[in-house]
Amino acid sequence: MIFVDACFRKPTPYTPIWMMRQAGRYLPEYMEVRRKAGDFLTLCKDPQMAAEVTLQPIEILDVDAAILFSDILVIPMEMGMELRFEKGEGPVFSKPVATLADVEALYDYPEERLGYVYETIRIVRSTLPQEKALIGFSGAPWTLATYMVEGGGSKSYAAIKQMVYADPGTLHALLIKVSEAIKAYLLKQIEAGVNAIQIFDSWASALEREKFFEFSWDYLVDIAAFLKERHPEIPIILFPKGIAGYLDGIEGPFDVFGVDWGTPMELAKKRLGKRYVLQGNMDPARLYDREATKEGVERIIEVMGARPGHIFNLGHGMLPDTPVENAKYLVELVHDLTRR
Amino acid sequence: MIFVDACFRKPTPYTPIWMMRQAGRYLPEYMEVRRKAGDFLTLCKDPQMAAEVTLQPIEILDVDAAILFSDILVIPMEMGMELRFEKGEGPVFSKPVATLADVEALYDYPEERLGYVYETIRIVRSTLPQEKALIGFSGAPWTLATYMVEGGGSKSYAAIKQMVYADPGTLHALLIKVSEAIKAYLLKQIEAGVNAIQIFDSWASALEREKFFEFSWDYLVDIAAFLKERHPEIPIILFPKGIAGYLDGIEGPFDVFGVDWGTPMELAKKRLGKRYVLQGNMDPARLYDREATKEGVERIIEVMGARPGHIFNLGHGMLPDTPVENAKYLVELVHDLTRR
Repeated sequence: MIFVDACFRKPTPYTPIWMMRQAGRYLPEYMEVRRKAGDFLTLCKDPQMAAEVTLQPIEILDVDAAILFSDILVIPMEMGMELRFEKGEGPVFSKPVATLADVEALYDYPEERLGYVYETIRIVRSTLPQEKALIGFSGAPWTLATYMVEGGGSKSYAAIKQMVYADPGTLHALLIKVSEAIKAYLLKQIEAGVNAIQIFDSWASALEREKFFEFSWDYLVDIAAFLKERHPEIPIILFPKGIAGYLDGIEGPFDVFGVDWGTPMELAKKRLGKRYVLQGNMDPARLYDREATKEGVERIIEVMGARPGHIFNLGHGMLPDTPVENAKYLVELVHDLTRR
Repeated sequence: MIFVDACFRKPTPYTPIWMMRQAGRYLPEYMEVRRKAGDFLTLCKDPQMAAEVTLQPIEILDVDAAILFSDILVIPMEMGMELRFEKGEGPVFSKPVATLADVEALYDYPEERLGYVYETIRIVRSTLPQEKALIGFSGAPWTLATYMVEGGGSKSYAAIKQMVYADPGTLHALLIKVSEAIKAYLLKQIEAGVNAIQIFDSWASALEREKFFEFSWDYLVDIAAFLKERHPEIPIILFPKGIAGYLDGIEGPFDVFGVDWGTPMELAKKRLGKRYVLQGNMDPARLYDREATKEGVERIIEVMGARPGHIFNLGHGMLPDTPVENAKYLVELVHDLTRR
């Protein structure tokens, strides 16, 4: 598979591309399935429908990899936390984690309850063309813990940072529990057939450098080491958002580093390009405009031109009002400009 | 004044400190005035009450500088945009700027309508002890434009980024108009008696590097050059939040660079420490805990020990639930640890 080869820095006929949130609201075909499902969690839990939306960007955009359609919050949900998605407000846990007793009350083996995800993977993998990769994923322990403690999205992260600074023991207990669940969950995703794993640390940027390493990075390394020991053939991609200032200490058993658009590709290449294949990093808002898309692609390819070592992606998830034709144009352009 | 001397890298008896949002909701004394005022904008527009809350942190915490109590959005408001502060939702402009006609309809001289701010400054400066500095401020053109186009706070910046990539002409027209207003406004603040100026670019991180320089940085340099030409004796502090990845191109006529907590002080010192006095950068959440405060202060002073060249501050605004006694402790600690 071109995508998996690229993750391991092997030569490929062109630079592969996929896009974060490529299965989503900007696609009319997605919206149709979403309407059929009724609500978002129903869609995540229905393997047939989840598989259908997972495959849509392959058919519509011809990207080189599909990413499992699911949500990072299924883990805390299957640990027993009541989750709902409120319109405009995003995900909400009705009873956030606040104490060590709350941590202890969480169910230990959510991976056993996530059979619908593995079933989705099996359906997708059996339908997907051989040359296209399927990416499995999980949220990072820190990002999941943040949702679990804040009870949802947050601007100031006041609740979890209270824990970071005033009650680190409780937070580490939570992170250990979540990390063990993630390991088991990702292992089962691999056994069900995914060809690569991406770990999203969307809220890495909520922590100052020293605390990022203590409360996020060390757990990420632990998870990657666990998976690598068992499945060295499965590439692991890490996407920690907003840590352009922390690149100097980044060292762990990942294959690919996902670069957000706030980290200039030149900087990422200089600091991390030898150690990791880099994935990224066009600002998704460039897709609003065809010329801006072209300019963005050309600039990134100019920097990363020396394939292997680059997988094209956006620097964050696609915006819901992205014009589909610009997304198609992006995929064509990346393939055309990088074809040997 | 110790603070002003420090801005110009002159020797001082100790490292001065102030805190972003030091006049605010964590102070019971502030809440009392706020209740008296009724709503937030009334407080901003009443020079007596605004002066009172400006002075509170000087009396309560013994910081080395007061910062004018106001809001960055008074400029767009006095350009004619209807502004309200919604509970939980933050600032809302009922009619966001969307077209060139909207830009042209904005009133050109909001500084003429901001007399209540200059009056606040005169009252504060006449009451403030001679050795304490008064800092005036403005939002950066990019940050103000973002509020004006988004109509309030934003997560994805979809509206303004649509403008960045698909309608840059309209955005530049807006930025030029806002920049001219900021120049005139800050000049009047200086004439009314402020001893330093800070420009807040809170949403600098919404732009990829290249676009940051085009839509934010160039305007900041223009404003600073305008003020420096007229008042070289007034130090200018720039606080662009979230651009740890862009430090290499930073060159402009500012005296002090405000470092956010996502930019490690070591990195800021290496990249910018020769060119700028650095201000910052403790994570405000450390103030939740006394030990965490001590650890944070010691680490920053270890890096920046070589005074002159450092002003202590937080790496972002104080959180509303900060314990006042920890804020007092922070000021004492910084003074004690750095006293010659």
